[in-house]
Amino acid sequence: MVRKEFAGVFPYLVSPVDSEGRVKESVLASLVKHLIKKGVHGLTPLGSTGEFAYLTWPQRQRVVEVAVEAAAGRVPVVAGVAHTSIPEAVRQAKEMEKIGVDGILAIMDTYFPVSAEGVAAYFRGIAEAVSLPVVLYTNPTFSATQLSAEVIETLAAVPNIRYLKDASANTGNLLTLMNRLEGKIKVFSASAHIPLAVMMFGGVGWMAGPSCVVPEESVRLYELARQRHWEEAIILQKRLWGINWVFQKYALAPCIKACLELQGFPVGDPIPPLQPLKGPAVKEIEAVLSALGALASETR
Amino acid sequence: MVRKEFAGVFPYLVSPVDSEGRVKESVLASLVKHLIKKGVHGLTPLGSTGEFAYLTWPQRQRVVEVAVEAAAGRVPVVAGVAHTSIPEAVRQAKEMEKIGVDGILAIMDTYFPVSAEGVAAYFRGIAEAVSLPVVLYTNPTFSATQLSAEVIETLAAVPNIRYLKDASANTGNLLTLMNRLEGKIKVFSASAHIPLAVMMFGGVGWMAGPSCVVPEESVRLYELARQRHWEEAIILQKRLWGINWVFQKYALAPCIKACLELQGFPVGDPIPPLQPLKGPAVKEIEAVLSALGALASETR
Amino acid sequence: MVRKEFAGVFPYLVSPVDSEGRVKESVLASLVKHLIKKGVHGLTPLGSTGEFAYLTWPQRQRVVEVAVEAAAGRVPVVAGVAHTSIPEAVRQAKEMEKIGVDGILAIMDTYFPVSAEGVAAYFRGIAEAVSLPVVLYTNPTFSATQLSAEVIETLAAVPNIRYLKDASANTGNLLTLMNRLEGKIKVFSASAHIPLAVMMFGGVGWMAGPSCVVPEESVRLYELARQRHWEEAIILQKRLWGINWVFQKYALAPCIKACLELQGFPVGDPIPPLQPLKGPAVKEIEAVLSALGALASETR
Amino acid sequence: MVRKEFAGVFPYLVSPVDSEGRVKESVLASLVKHLIKKGVHGLTPLGSTGEFAYLTWPQRQRVVEVAVEAAAGRVPVVAGVAHTSIPEAVRQAKEMEKIGVDGILAIMDTYFPVSAEGVAAYFRGIAEAVSLPVVLYTNPTFSATQLSAEVIETLAAVPNIRYLKDASANTGNLLTLMNRLEGKIKVFSASAHIPLAVMMFGGVGWMAGPSCVVPEESVRLYELARQRHWEEAIILQKRLWGINWVFQKYALAPCIKACLELQGFPVGDPIPPLQPLKGPAVKEIEAVLSALGALASETR
Repeated sequence: MVRKEFAGVFPYLVSPVDSEGRVKESVLASLVKHLIKKGVHGLTPLGSTGEFAYLTWPQRQRVVEVAVEAAAGRVPVVAGVAHTSIPEAVRQAKEMEKIGVDGILAIMDTYFPVSAEGVAAYFRGIAEAVSLPVVLYTNPTFSATQLSAEVIETLAAVPNIRYLKDASANTGNLLTLMNRLEGKIKVFSASAHIPLAVMMFGGVGWMAGPSCVVPEESVRLYELARQRHWEEAIILQKRLWGINWVFQKYALAPCIKACLELQGFPVGDPIPPLQPLKGPAVKEIEAVLSALGALASETR
Repeated sequence: MVRKEFAGVFPYLVSPVDSEGRVKESVLASLVKHLIKKGVHGLTPLGSTGEFAYLTWPQRQRVVEVAVEAAAGRVPVVAGVAHTSIPEAVRQAKEMEKIGVDGILAIMDTYFPVSAEGVAAYFRGIAEAVSLPVVLYTNPTFSATQLSAEVIETLAAVPNIRYLKDASANTGNLLTLMNRLEGKIKVFSASAHIPLAVMMFGGVGWMAGPSCVVPEESVRLYELARQRHWEEAIILQKRLWGINWVFQKYALAPCIKACLELQGFPVGDPIPPLQPLKGPAVKEIEAVLSALGALASETR
Repeated sequence: MVRKEFAGVFPYLVSPVDSEGRVKESVLASLVKHLIKKGVHGLTPLGSTGEFAYLTWPQRQRVVEVAVEAAAGRVPVVAGVAHTSIPEAVRQAKEMEKIGVDGILAIMDTYFPVSAEGVAAYFRGIAEAVSLPVVLYTNPTFSATQLSAEVIETLAAVPNIRYLKDASANTGNLLTLMNRLEGKIKVFSASAHIPLAVMMFGGVGWMAGPSCVVPEESVRLYELARQRHWEEAIILQKRLWGINWVFQKYALAPCIKACLELQGFPVGDPIPPLQPLKGPAVKEIEAVLSALGALASETR
Repeated sequence: MVRKEFAGVFPYLVSPVDSEGRVKESVLASLVKHLIKKGVHGLTPLGSTGEFAYLTWPQRQRVVEVAVEAAAGRVPVVAGVAHTSIPEAVRQAKEMEKIGVDGILAIMDTYFPVSAEGVAAYFRGIAEAVSLPVVLYTNPTFSATQLSAEVIETLAAVPNIRYLKDASANTGNLLTLMNRLEGKIKVFSASAHIPLAVMMFGGVGWMAGPSCVVPEESVRLYELARQRHWEEAIILQKRLWGINWVFQKYALAPCIKACLELQGFPVGDPIPPLQPLKGPAVKEIEAVLSALGALASETR
């Protein structure tokens, strides 16, 4: 099989878990099928939006199994792997490969600060343990990791480290990185960046929570960008941005779960100690979704 | 006189000061004339790049007088006003108006944290003291000021608060702000943002140090954006970005002064306690300028 | 059995792990016996110094089993429990109780910011799952957790939440907290604070990495403080502080492991991605230990 | 005249300014006389509590003139000098010397980050411009200045740089510094530190806002420490600490002004854009003062 390059819209999947800690498998499967029907180009379970940090290993495993099974090979599944320790991250990556994912989103948890040498060893360790393409994930907001331009360039020499997902919110720095990495590592935008801006400067798509909620419009934005219809794309991007604005105001994972509930997917509450959104925040989100024509009755 | 709207490329001027503390007037005047000849749409003395924080009041005054005189009405001069105290900022703004500037760039210095109420009072105080258009300046990197979206919206009701210059580096937040402020306050980009991205989403230009060094290319980028020739603009923006990258690596004001020296403007060293760039940094900057065809022999 | 109150010097144990990931059991057991012989009042495996964040669950379990077995009931063993998720932390705490520890050091890992309500739920969850005394651990340096004075006061109502270990470095805030909590929760100092200062204002001891390296002097300092021999205590505290100074300069866990190696305990390298200290740092540490008469030949 | 060493309690003076910007001279003079009557060992106008950052130069000058005149040589007056620029700070220091102060509290304002070399040049510049003893002031909370241990040691070689006032809140680091500087530079505590703890480890006193409000008790605490009556001192320190706790909860300068108003000194509101405390905060402060027997009727 010739593996296709990753490109396009990869929604971050939420992790629906009931109060007993069981993965709500049918809810997750129906969300996966819905997103594929809407045209997304891939799926990313166990990103930040997937609340990976609050899941046990068996829960993580089950979430990915359900996603892979429901996707049924129609789109690639790129699963998050995250730990502080190298051997444990390597173990997770190998298990993910056995489950049948198409790529690894490599996230580095941190406790103590780690030197550039240690950071490089972490990501290289994961990449060398699997034969899958690896997406480097950098998020200075929730992690002290110094995934500097220099470290990324070093890692670009590892054959299966092929993509970068940058969640830093500093779009200027991302362009700097893209200019330096040209041709070595392809860049996915995150919701903190304006996806269209990243596409204009050479990005290949985005991995983001909001696409879970507005998949059809996200795909349309991607297509407009791919075909370089900038004028239309700009109008759509500005319109869609409202959803990012409200998500940044509140916590991301609870927002996406609240949206999906409003759209008729009973994904349940965020996983404790995360707390569900309060009523006024839900109302505000409902208004934003409604303005985008993205409420339940309208989307299915 | 019908006052023209501010739009386009407004380079931040450096403040050339000799070792005795005298403003190097002829150097500054010749820089101003050079920039106007290259087509810039306005000039901004006493921004961050202008090292306002290291100048005495008489030095600030002299810098602006020289800029206004050299500009001779051909382009608007928007001068920085900055203090922690409201009465002192008001005094500065009034003095600037007397000198004959065309607008005020209102910067709030901070020492203690200031409440939203106090922040609004500061900017309102400046605006009400003058009859000139005011540009709000927000820079979370060097200032603890909380110039929040809510405060900006309140300030938009003051008739002569007409523009915003955001130096936050978070382009996503800037788009949020632009969406919320549409029609009330016009937005200038700063060097931390990708100017083209800001233009695409409704910005009216940029106020930035790098334009001091590559004025002609900056004007061309603005024109391409204004005429919505996105494809050409993207290529030029990516090329010009190299200069931002190297400036962010080192301190901004020392970089611009080093560049101008390389281009044949003897602007001198940054003002103590700021230190001039070391040799290797100058070499690196020289290489970037050379790649852009922006060295002395090439530019004048 | 009447359970004794925790008080005195509780060294944070390192976690000696070989390059295959096996706990170096005999090294750990001999360190435990050495520390008890030197008079320490308790032992704390799986604190920050114990590199808990870089250990798998089976490794954590084994470290605690070895410590409990080697301590053989002579001093209490208070084991660290740490996760982002409540159910997983609860599971860990129950397992620790089964192993036979005498108390739980409850640490909250964070990824997303967690509300005060979520933070309280985390610590209450652990406490209610066991019948052991619980030590709250607060460390703003490595964790975004907001364990505020208000949350701590709420938690003080849970019968077995009995102690606080504060690693914030802000001794003033710690005194504020001690004044507010008087009689409800007892306070242990951490190495970021000056233990003697905390003792003077009502602290009951300290849990800290450096005591692993200078156990005898630490016990003497505690005894001087307990007997309120302040003059002698001040002299000793100032002398011992040199070790804190050098540890804060480098990373804590690698420092303690380097010291123990110098003292003849082959605990090995820090766990990847943490890196061992470089040569010059080891030399510097050796000099500090030597000045304290705490090198191998002198201590055993 | 043999100049006496600075030691003991130096209250930070507030700057009473009316709504027209005039220094309330008689209020300030009567506060100065009151504090001297209560036994303070020195006075510090234009520290943070003195809202120096919100005063014009003529206001600063007037505040110091009034303080010097009212003190009438009975206790030393150490005046704050603060700017971003070296020549301006030098000018201020010289003017202060002419007014007749006994020492300079050297504060470095920052805008851009400044290198260690630039920081050293700033403080050396001030010291060399005057023949007065200089107190280095370090406050990482409100200033980005890196006044590192290395820079302080370098500066200790300048003959009249004789004291350090550290407002960092990290008491451990302060002890490190004191151990390193022993005999070269004497250390004053700030309100962020527990003054008694700093005294125990070799400090010579404190410069702090709260002493403005509880001068008599502050002097008693100093005397107990000086005579090494630690037991009594500990009890008093714990009792007095309540005032620090409530001051840290709200903004320092507005708190001290509110306290002084409650004690019958009509010092007025904080200087805009700083805002006066709201009613509930004033009530809370009143309760703390009352518990310390420090309300108007009790103190004069």
